[in-house]
Amino acid sequence: MSQQLKYAVFGSGSWATAIVKMLCENLEEVGWYMRSVYTKEHLLKEQHNPSYLSSVEFHLEQLKLSNDINEMAEYADVLIFVVPSAFIHSELQKLTVDITNKTVVSAVKGIIPETGKLLGEHFHDNYNIPFENIGVIAGPCHAEEVALERLSYLTISCADQKKAQAIADVLSSDYIKTKTSDDVIGTEYAVMLKNIYAIAAGIAHGLGYGDNFQSVLMSNAIREMKRFIKKMHKMKRNINNSAYLGDLLVTGYSTFSRNRMFGNMIGKGYTVKSAQMEMSMVAEGYYATKSAHLLNEKNKKKTRLPIVDAVYAVLYEGKDAKKVFQKLTDKLD
Amino acid sequence: MSQQLKYAVFGSGSWATAIVKMLCENLEEVGWYMRSVYTKEHLLKEQHNPSYLSSVEFHLEQLKLSNDINEMAEYADVLIFVVPSAFIHSELQKLTVDITNKTVVSAVKGIIPETGKLLGEHFHDNYNIPFENIGVIAGPCHAEEVALERLSYLTISCADQKKAQAIADVLSSDYIKTKTSDDVIGTEYAVMLKNIYAIAAGIAHGLGYGDNFQSVLMSNAIREMKRFIKKMHKMKRNINNSAYLGDLLVTGYSTFSRNRMFGNMIGKGYTVKSAQMEMSMVAEGYYATKSAHLLNEKNKKKTRLPIVDAVYAVLYEGKDAKKVFQKLTDKLD
Repeated sequence: MSQQLKYAVFGSGSWATAIVKMLCENLEEVGWYMRSVYTKEHLLKEQHNPSYLSSVEFHLEQLKLSNDINEMAEYADVLIFVVPSAFIHSELQKLTVDITNKTVVSAVKGIIPETGKLLGEHFHDNYNIPFENIGVIAGPCHAEEVALERLSYLTISCADQKKAQAIADVLSSDYIKTKTSDDVIGTEYAVMLKNIYAIAAGIAHGLGYGDNFQSVLMSNAIREMKRFIKKMHKMKRNINNSAYLGDLLVTGYSTFSRNRMFGNMIGKGYTVKSAQMEMSMVAEGYYATKSAHLLNEKNKKKTRLPIVDAVYAVLYEGKDAKKVFQKLTDKLD
Repeated sequence: MSQQLKYAVFGSGSWATAIVKMLCENLEEVGWYMRSVYTKEHLLKEQHNPSYLSSVEFHLEQLKLSNDINEMAEYADVLIFVVPSAFIHSELQKLTVDITNKTVVSAVKGIIPETGKLLGEHFHDNYNIPFENIGVIAGPCHAEEVALERLSYLTISCADQKKAQAIADVLSSDYIKTKTSDDVIGTEYAVMLKNIYAIAAGIAHGLGYGDNFQSVLMSNAIREMKRFIKKMHKMKRNINNSAYLGDLLVTGYSTFSRNRMFGNMIGKGYTVKSAQMEMSMVAEGYYATKSAHLLNEKNKKKTRLPIVDAVYAVLYEGKDAKKVFQKLTDKLD
């Protein structure tokens, strides 16, 4: 059934490339939109993405490539968005075709910074897409390990469990196991928050805190995540499921995580600006920190978020990381 | 108040040495029993433990050293046991003085293999020590980081919260933060189980599974730990507190953990015996696996413990690690 639907991935970063690879295991044709003309040309010539997961070779006859977001939105029944938060707003402004009857799936790692909305909310509010046609793909999953075909688990969330299962089916393979969930909002917030906690882990590491502290930080982070998500959207969920705790751990413990690296530089004494320049890109968690802070500000009764508050103070209020984290250590247990 | 009580540590491994160091930050005198005459002589001559945390220098005037377990048990009001599970039974057989009125604290990382009992149960059953005089020191805490005075957190459990607080107070310092809990049994089981999960993490790593799988494994491990402990002793507890989840993470993610190393060798193809010989010591989790398995066997309705079962099958039933873990991957989510 689901095989007859047309799927397209929007974005050409490492996570987008990994998702295209997963879909190619099951589908005869996969749509792939990317902004860069160069990337498309390179793919057509060399059968791999020039910039990300370049070891993954694609069969061109399986790919329907396009630099036109509207052409691709028209083509596909299921639209999977995997654009970095920093570009998602400008990308979506190009999207003009009617997609009311499509299924939209978010694999964006954060919130739309300009609006403070989750991708799902954005599509619901701006394109009249009903919530049962909105899904989320959550990890824990480094794209690099998908490239290596190392066993990974995904959670597909959608209010409509049949749709969730259909998407799960086209992503499953020898090396990808999937489960479904109906907690669309919770998994989207989890994806956003974990990047903030990865920055916190990086800052702590940069400041010289060790493994003992890191484990306390992660143990507090998952409790903080639970409080935050519960406040935003109360429902029965097990925060220790892979989509929440697993995703937090794979990011918070990864020395390759850009968010953790960004935090690490700040812990070592770089200013926020110089860390960003050094990395030549902005870590997702940078935007997520502001979004989470603002969302919590809006609450009448604020949730206790000592870790998010600490990262916010360092990134946006120019506070000294060492002092902020010294205070934070008293708030953890 | 608590400062007037006499504390003694029983054991001379790295964790025992770390606890003596913590106590020395607050107490004028700390009792320290060790089996080895050589270790005691070395300490007297060189002011440090010859085999563990040898960078930590002690002030001899603070230490009351002894090779006589009964002398030390007589001396102290609070007895902290930090002997490896493998030796605890034979050590305790030497203990003949009356300790009915003493407080006994377990920092043993597991169960007494010969009896299947927690240390607290053992003292309650064999020495008539009431449960309100029995405590547990739990991490997350690598001894090596205590030696470096890197910030670490401990949880002290005792049914009597005043006693827990008194013990917490003498352990606290600039680099040690403490909290108390009344879940003596739960924290003891957590300490035991985490070593099994660290072996599982090691086996998975040795078999070539990556970080994505590791995070799924840990996310399943904490849910499994919750089920196990709930079955053994039902009470209100937050399994994501540092004493449970934090301790699991610091062990499961540590490449220095002996349990993880042991698992890693098995994953790489060593037999259980050769891995043990290679390590020249037995990993705590080896005994813990058998104990957890037997405890679960005793339950009328067994708890679902796929990870413990998998490790048991590899360590005690001679099953092939690769096949066992392949099956395990289907039971995780």
